Amino acid sequence: MGEEFNRRKFVKAAAAAAGSALLAGCGSGGSGGGGGAPGVITGKKYEWNMVTTWPPHFPVIGEAADKLAQWVDQMSGGRLKIKVYGGGELVPPLEAFDNVRQGTVEMGHGAAYYWAGKVPAAQFFAAVPFGMNAQGMNAWLYGGGGLELWQEVYGQFGLVPMPAGNSGVQMGGWFNKEINSAQDLKGLKMRIPGLGGKVIAKAGGAAILSPGSEIYTNLERGVIDATEWIGPHHDLLMGFHKIAKYYYTPGWHEPGTVIEMFINKAKWESLEPDLQEIVRAAAYRSNLWMLSQFEALNNDALQKLIGEHKVQLRRFPDDVLATLRKYTDEVLQELIEKDATSKKVYEHFDAFRKKVGAWANHSEAAYHSLVAPSK
Amino acid sequence: MGEEFNRRKFVKAAAAAAGSALLAGCGSGGSGGGGGAPGVITGKKYEWNMVTTWPPHFPVIGEAADKLAQWVDQMSGGRLKIKVYGGGELVPPLEAFDNVRQGTVEMGHGAAYYWAGKVPAAQFFAAVPFGMNAQGMNAWLYGGGGLELWQEVYGQFGLVPMPAGNSGVQMGGWFNKEINSAQDLKGLKMRIPGLGGKVIAKAGGAAILSPGSEIYTNLERGVIDATEWIGPHHDLLMGFHKIAKYYYTPGWHEPGTVIEMFINKAKWESLEPDLQEIVRAAAYRSNLWMLSQFEALNNDALQKLIGEHKVQLRRFPDDVLATLRKYTDEVLQELIEKDATSKKVYEHFDAFRKKVGAWANHSEAAYHSLVAPSK
Repeated sequence: MGEEFNRRKFVKAAAAAAGSALLAGCGSGGSGGGGGAPGVITGKKYEWNMVTTWPPHFPVIGEAADKLAQWVDQMSGGRLKIKVYGGGELVPPLEAFDNVRQGTVEMGHGAAYYWAGKVPAAQFFAAVPFGMNAQGMNAWLYGGGGLELWQEVYGQFGLVPMPAGNSGVQMGGWFNKEINSAQDLKGLKMRIPGLGGKVIAKAGGAAILSPGSEIYTNLERGVIDATEWIGPHHDLLMGFHKIAKYYYTPGWHEPGTVIEMFINKAKWESLEPDLQEIVRAAAYRSNLWMLSQFEALNNDALQKLIGEHKVQLRRFPDDVLATLRKYTDEVLQELIEKDATSKKVYEHFDAFRKKVGAWANHSEAAYHSLVAPSK
Repeated sequence: MGEEFNRRKFVKAAAAAAGSALLAGCGSGGSGGGGGAPGVITGKKYEWNMVTTWPPHFPVIGEAADKLAQWVDQMSGGRLKIKVYGGGELVPPLEAFDNVRQGTVEMGHGAAYYWAGKVPAAQFFAAVPFGMNAQGMNAWLYGGGGLELWQEVYGQFGLVPMPAGNSGVQMGGWFNKEINSAQDLKGLKMRIPGLGGKVIAKAGGAAILSPGSEIYTNLERGVIDATEWIGPHHDLLMGFHKIAKYYYTPGWHEPGTVIEMFINKAKWESLEPDLQEIVRAAAYRSNLWMLSQFEALNNDALQKLIGEHKVQLRRFPDDVLATLRKYTDEVLQELIEKDATSKKVYEHFDAFRKKVGAWANHSEAAYHSLVAPSK
C-alpha cells in the first residue's frame, strides 16, 4: 500500500525538481483539473507478445487469453498491448515455455503439465488425478501458499506464473466399448496425456499421445479405442459422438485443470508496479470468467449429446475408479521418489487437499447431495 | 516478488526522466521514449468513499473490501482512491444502499438480501435457500445473464452492482438442542434473517432478527435457542461453541452467498473507461480472493471446534431438510406472486440452476463422491 504512495510522492518531487514553469508549459502536468477532463496517460508503452498452446481463438480457453489481453489494454489505457498468438502462429505450441524463458517472447498461456518433461513438479499446478477441483485449486493457490511455491518452481526458469483460468471437472472420455471392470482397461489404447496416461499404462492400457487435430481420425480408424478431451462443450465441437458410443464420467484424471499464464521474469520486472497489478487483476478475472463460461455452457452441450445424438452416458464402476486411484498413488509415489522438487510440491499440495477435502465434506459435498436432481 | 526491486528501479528511472525533462523541455509527453522511462499518469483524480455493512476490517469479508480499494489505487496509479468505512462509521450499515443511491456516498459493499425490504428481487443476487453454490452463482452472473438482470434491477435505483466476493457454503447454525425431526423446529427461536427466516417461521419456529453484536448474549440468555452465522472461521471467532452444544450442517439457507459492491450510477459514468475496467477487474479479483480465503481457512477452524472445543457436529436429518425445502418452495412462490420483478428474476435464476445442477451431477457432485474422505 505504501508503495504507491511513495511513487506518487516521488513523481511530485521529481516534477518540482524539473521546474514548474517547464511542466506548466507542456500542459500535461496538472492533476485533478477540469471537471470532466479525461485521464491523460503518458509514459512508456509496451508491445508484448503472448504465445499460447491452443489453436487460435480456441473456444473459452483461447477466448479467455484474448480477453485477458483486451482487459490489460483497457485498464492500462493502451500502455501495455499484448498480441495473442495461437499455437504454431509464432512458435510451436509446446515451445511456448522455452521461448518465454529465453525472452524471445514476453508471455505464454497454457497448462503447466505441458512442461512435465522439463519441470516434473509443474504438473501439480495444472491437474492431478483424484486431486483438487477448481475451487480447491484456487484456494490452494491464492489462499494456501500454492502460488508462492509455483513462483519458486518457475522462478528457477526465469518465469513468473499466474493462474489464468480453469476448466472445471472434465469428462472421463469417449470409449468405443463399455468399461465394466478394471479388466476392460487391459489392452485399451487411449489418448490420454500426463499423469492420467501413466495411470492407464499401469492399469494395462496403452497411453497414446496425439495432438488434438489427429484424435478424431485416430479414433475413427481404430488407432485408439478411447480418448479424453475436455468436457461436453468442447467435445461436442470435436464431434466425437459420431464415432464413439460411450461417454464416461467423471474426469478422475483432471478434476479442475488450471490454465496458466507465465511471463518472462526480466520483462515482468521491467513493468511499472501499476502495470504489474493490472496484469495480476486481469489474470484473476480471466480465471473466474473462464470457469464461469465452462459451467454455463457444459450442460447445454451435454443435453444435446444425450438428447439429439443419443450418446450413452456412463459412470465408471466403483472398482474401476478404485483401481485407477490405486495406480494414481503409485504413479505419484514414483514421481516424488525421483524428483525432490516434486516431493516438496506434492507434500504441500496433498496436505492442503486433505484440509480442503475435510471441509468440503461438510460444505460443497453436502450441498450437492442436498440439491441433487431426483431421478 | 520483485516489487522492492522495481520500486528502486522506478525511483532511479524517474530521476533520469526528470533530468531529461529539464533538458528537453517537453520530454514527459513522449510515448515509448527512453528505455527505462516510467509511466507518468496525469488527469483527473477521484477520492471516493465506500460504506460497508460490516464491522471495520471484518475478517475475510471486510478485508476483501480493504484489498479491493488498495488494488484500485495501485492499478490506477493513485487516480482513484477509495476510503473504506465499516458499518456505522460514516452511515449505519443498513443505510448504505440509500446513501449510495442518493449519491452522498459513491460506493457500497454488502449483500443484496439486506435490501429485500426495498427490492425484494435483490435476494436472488445474494442467497436463496437450496439455491446455487458459489460456482453456480458465478456461472449465472458472469456466464448466464444474471449480472445483466442484476444491473437492470439495481439500475432502477440508480445503482451499478458487481459481485465482489462469496462466502462459499455456509454452516447450518448453532443449536442448544438436537434437531431430530421437523417437530423439533416447532417453537424454535432462531436468529436467521431473510428467506431462511421465512422458512423457519413456516416450519413453526420463530425467526428472530438480531444484529451480529447481540447474538452471543441472546443465545447465552435463552432469548434465542439457535443461530446461524457464517462458517467455522467466523463462528469460532464469535465463540458460539462456548454456549451452544450442536453445530449443524449443511447451510441449506445460504449455499453460496454473493458479497456485492454497488456504485452510484452517475458517479460510475463520470469515470474514464480505463478506471471503470480497473474497478471491474478489482471486483472479480476480490470475488475469487474472498472465496479462496474462506475455503483455505474454514477447515482449520472446524477441526479446532471439534478437536479442542468438543463441539458436536450434526447433519440435519433428511426429513428435516425435505420439510425445509418444501417450505422454501412455498416462500418463493409467495414472493413471486406478489412481485413481478422477483418473478422475472426467479424464473431466470431457477432455469439456470436446473441447467448448472444437471451438469454438476456429472461433474462437481461426481468429483466429491470420488474423493470423499473414507470413514
